[in-house]
Amino acid sequence: MRSLTTDIVVEWEDCDPAGLVFYPRFLSYFDRGSWNLWHAIGLDLPAMKALGAFGFPALEAKATFHYPCRFRDRLRIVSEVAEINSKTVRVDHTIYNGEQEAVTGYEVRFWGVGHPADPQGVRAGVIPDEVLKMLK
Amino acid sequence: MRSLTTDIVVEWEDCDPAGLVFYPRFLSYFDRGSWNLWHAIGLDLPAMKALGAFGFPALEAKATFHYPCRFRDRLRIVSEVAEINSKTVRVDHTIYNGEQEAVTGYEVRFWGVGHPADPQGVRAGVIPDEVLKMLK
Amino acid sequence: MRSLTTDIVVEWEDCDPAGLVFYPRFLSYFDRGSWNLWHAIGLDLPAMKALGAFGFPALEAKATFHYPCRFRDRLRIVSEVAEINSKTVRVDHTIYNGEQEAVTGYEVRFWGVGHPADPQGVRAGVIPDEVLKMLK
Amino acid sequence: MRSLTTDIVVEWEDCDPAGLVFYPRFLSYFDRGSWNLWHAIGLDLPAMKALGAFGFPALEAKATFHYPCRFRDRLRIVSEVAEINSKTVRVDHTIYNGEQEAVTGYEVRFWGVGHPADPQGVRAGVIPDEVLKMLK
Repeated sequence: MRSLTTDIVVEWEDCDPAGLVFYPRFLSYFDRGSWNLWHAIGLDLPAMKALGAFGFPALEAKATFHYPCRFRDRLRIVSEVAEINSKTVRVDHTIYNGEQEAVTGYEVRFWGVGHPADPQGVRAGVIPDEVLKMLK
Repeated sequence: MRSLTTDIVVEWEDCDPAGLVFYPRFLSYFDRGSWNLWHAIGLDLPAMKALGAFGFPALEAKATFHYPCRFRDRLRIVSEVAEINSKTVRVDHTIYNGEQEAVTGYEVRFWGVGHPADPQGVRAGVIPDEVLKMLK
Repeated sequence: MRSLTTDIVVEWEDCDPAGLVFYPRFLSYFDRGSWNLWHAIGLDLPAMKALGAFGFPALEAKATFHYPCRFRDRLRIVSEVAEINSKTVRVDHTIYNGEQEAVTGYEVRFWGVGHPADPQGVRAGVIPDEVLKMLK
Repeated sequence: MRSLTTDIVVEWEDCDPAGLVFYPRFLSYFDRGSWNLWHAIGLDLPAMKALGAFGFPALEAKATFHYPCRFRDRLRIVSEVAEINSKTVRVDHTIYNGEQEAVTGYEVRFWGVGHPADPQGVRAGVIPDEVLKMLK
């Protein structure tokens, strides 16, 4: 299934007083990897809106930290569609720090139909066929 | 084992263009819950330093999102020590949005011996007995 | 004119590898102070929407840093409406760290008419009379 | 004097419920621009440490917002050393969104001698001659 690689430099703002990346930032990196993947397959926000959705909000996320990352480290995020269900998709992420596997994890995301301005907000809906084709 | 409740108001900066809390922010809330718990049991950063450590860096984190959280929602984080091993501790977190269980998850954290200024930085060490007593 | 005090504890995520609050975070604190002020005077987001607006986006911001702030420091933000014009308002902020004046600054914000879903987005408009009364 | 251009894509996490970049994020962009500038002139963190310092903490920062920036906008930050004093340096920043001047501003930063582990922490010191040469 579809995958994408995103290069990132660890910024000063990503690091904590221990000199390490503040761990929730790695989940932000996952999120960037996923958005970049959506864009790469033709699914940018205007395309999502044309299909009645407003992004793929997260249902679940997990990360395991194997190797420390510090200021100015050059990271490589490999993001891959790993599982597709009727309303959700799982994206697996591996973050490399040089040769080292630094972080592994995944996100489960749902197809967010509706619009923030709706009274019910954005909610899970069935992924349209054209999106399924893009994800594969 | 020890637990603590932290009250949080969702800030404007925590929310994304979908009007929802940007999901990695919930992991930041977990982190706040854990630091508040360490402080409540007498384990603030100076106490950690006196014991040769510099925090409890994360080894693993997972979150599941059950219910949407939006700007100005008043959240309640219940953080509880759930498992203690020789070098690691697991903290379970439940975030309530009013009556609703909004987010559940956990962090596995290691006892981070050393100091950021050390050449090897902060690394996993055996949790001292006095810390084990505090956690229970 | 109207003012409000907000209490804040410096979180781990707010601090950088130098052990100091990452300076743009102080501007986030300003933003929190302003939102709290809007709420205190009856101008929450639903009230703004009822008046055709979606917040008070920033036009200008300045901060001067006088005294260091570190992890777990207890800060007090005093936010005060300092100047009102037809489309903009200036809010002055002073952040105290204990007895010390740690940060001083201001934001100029405009009345953001419209809605993010509008083709032109949120733009500057004349502040309605009822809002002017609330600000004074 | 020395200047540098940094390219940035606005990430989902940078945007607020109004669909606009949360304004303190622009100051984070300034900070990235400054760090990139230090690196470009040979002044990375190890080089700073070798000279007895730990970064250039901020003393003052100002930003004016001229044009809206939204998710996926491609920004260009031009950062330029604008003034050098014995202990401080002013860096001017202009952020372009396409052809538009979106944000203008500056930071005044001091040469931060010492180390976070010092009892007095990082404090202002006289900028060494070799650093003055790099900045010009």
